[in-house]
Amino acid sequence: MSDLRAPEHQVAGHRAAPDKLGPLVDGAGLFYKPLQALDRGEQELAFYTAFSAHPDVPPRIRDAFFPRFHGTRLLPTAASPGESHPHLILDDILKGLAAPSVTDIKIGACTWPPRAPEPYVEKCLAKDRGSTSVLLGFRVSGVMVSDPSGVVWRPDRSELKGTDIPGVRRMLRRYVSSVGGEDCALAAAVYGGEGGVLAQLRELKAWFEVQTLFHFYSASVLLSYDANAVTAPGGAPRVKLVDFAHVVESEGVIDHNFLGGLCSLIKFIDDIVSSDKAPPVQS
Amino acid sequence: MSDLRAPEHQVAGHRAAPDKLGPLVDGAGLFYKPLQALDRGEQELAFYTAFSAHPDVPPRIRDAFFPRFHGTRLLPTAASPGESHPHLILDDILKGLAAPSVTDIKIGACTWPPRAPEPYVEKCLAKDRGSTSVLLGFRVSGVMVSDPSGVVWRPDRSELKGTDIPGVRRMLRRYVSSVGGEDCALAAAVYGGEGGVLAQLRELKAWFEVQTLFHFYSASVLLSYDANAVTAPGGAPRVKLVDFAHVVESEGVIDHNFLGGLCSLIKFIDDIVSSDKAPPVQS
Repeated sequence: MSDLRAPEHQVAGHRAAPDKLGPLVDGAGLFYKPLQALDRGEQELAFYTAFSAHPDVPPRIRDAFFPRFHGTRLLPTAASPGESHPHLILDDILKGLAAPSVTDIKIGACTWPPRAPEPYVEKCLAKDRGSTSVLLGFRVSGVMVSDPSGVVWRPDRSELKGTDIPGVRRMLRRYVSSVGGEDCALAAAVYGGEGGVLAQLRELKAWFEVQTLFHFYSASVLLSYDANAVTAPGGAPRVKLVDFAHVVESEGVIDHNFLGGLCSLIKFIDDIVSSDKAPPVQS
Repeated sequence: MSDLRAPEHQVAGHRAAPDKLGPLVDGAGLFYKPLQALDRGEQELAFYTAFSAHPDVPPRIRDAFFPRFHGTRLLPTAASPGESHPHLILDDILKGLAAPSVTDIKIGACTWPPRAPEPYVEKCLAKDRGSTSVLLGFRVSGVMVSDPSGVVWRPDRSELKGTDIPGVRRMLRRYVSSVGGEDCALAAAVYGGEGGVLAQLRELKAWFEVQTLFHFYSASVLLSYDANAVTAPGGAPRVKLVDFAHVVESEGVIDHNFLGGLCSLIKFIDDIVSSDKAPPVQS
């Protein structure tokens, strides 16, 4: 157990600390996510269980865009010595990235399942209207840029919360820029190209246009890359879906809320790649 | 003026009556829509004016999917003798259909512009949650089937309001079925095929994936066809957008709300065409 530790590169969600529960990594490729309180942990476990075994999920989609699920495990918690807590065992989606730059983007104008209890709906709706979710179809929940020396940019939650549409555009530009700048030096390598973020998001979109299995309320697209590896073979940026505590079964209907937000993100990122290609304005 | 009359085949919205304002047609191809109360009429006029002249709207999209706009005209009103009321002059999108069958589908999980006043948002949100809009990404606002003898099916508003997802599926099946049945006899001709509803909706979708000019809150897709002409040359079903009182300018973002609902409608109709193609289950 001694090799389990809090991940260094988490950008959103609950963090582990000596006095509270948080995710752990084993350094060998596994990620342990504590089951969340209320019924969220059970719901996320139910999703992973159903999704992993579902015959109608294309294996390519499952392998490319979701962390692999390896069951659950009881782990002792530093917060309550002598007690243990169930954790989901998942692939560590940042495995092998020496200096990961990560963005967590919560997809959908609406983050509340339609049949959720009223107080929860109201809380989510206020957040959706108070952030860019309703206007933009997504919001940035976390962003972090690293270089070999460590994390070089990680805006805090209050900064993210107050972000408007131009602010999101700046963040998604800065995420692929030289340290401290907004030059989009890595836009073509990270967002563009054959194995880039855009190509992967478009493959995911094609599945969302037809899948009527699940509706992914409040789930995120997590982007990651290593600036020193992204132009090398095998260094392609990664696109994964995470956070499934509010996934519900569909009723024979596509997840139009997630799909709409995903299309908005695609257009937004495509605009960054395109403007990056345009020759700089001469003064 | 004497040739103006209330249209026979309206399926949703305000109807003209001796004591109230409603749209009029001239029988020669023009449709007169009274400017709505509050600022809705002015907003719809502003949209048509901006949209008609906008250099970034592809002419093919404007011609295929929108009623042509011919300015405004003051018309005397039966409701208030001696007074006149401004009307939008539009193409009558049902022109030439001897026995039109019409469906009005309000697109989008969310029908309220994000910056609308609070009481209006709350009213719309209640309707969106109380109808299929939130779950399905659209709702049927009106449906009508005609044959040469006249209207043979037109559920009233209370019936439409109480409709759930299976109910919407039944309506969209019945809309292309023999009178009184649910045999989908016309599904291939109306929904399928080269010039059919699905092909047209997909063309519209491709534009919504890239257009960042307008967000079409509370607008409808209006489908129409004539059962006796739909399989003949020139009898292709029609797909038009209508009702623009709540269109707002975009902020460099696609209309993810409309697009998501449109994709949901496409999948829903595609399922009807596909199930219609499958051999019937033998008992």
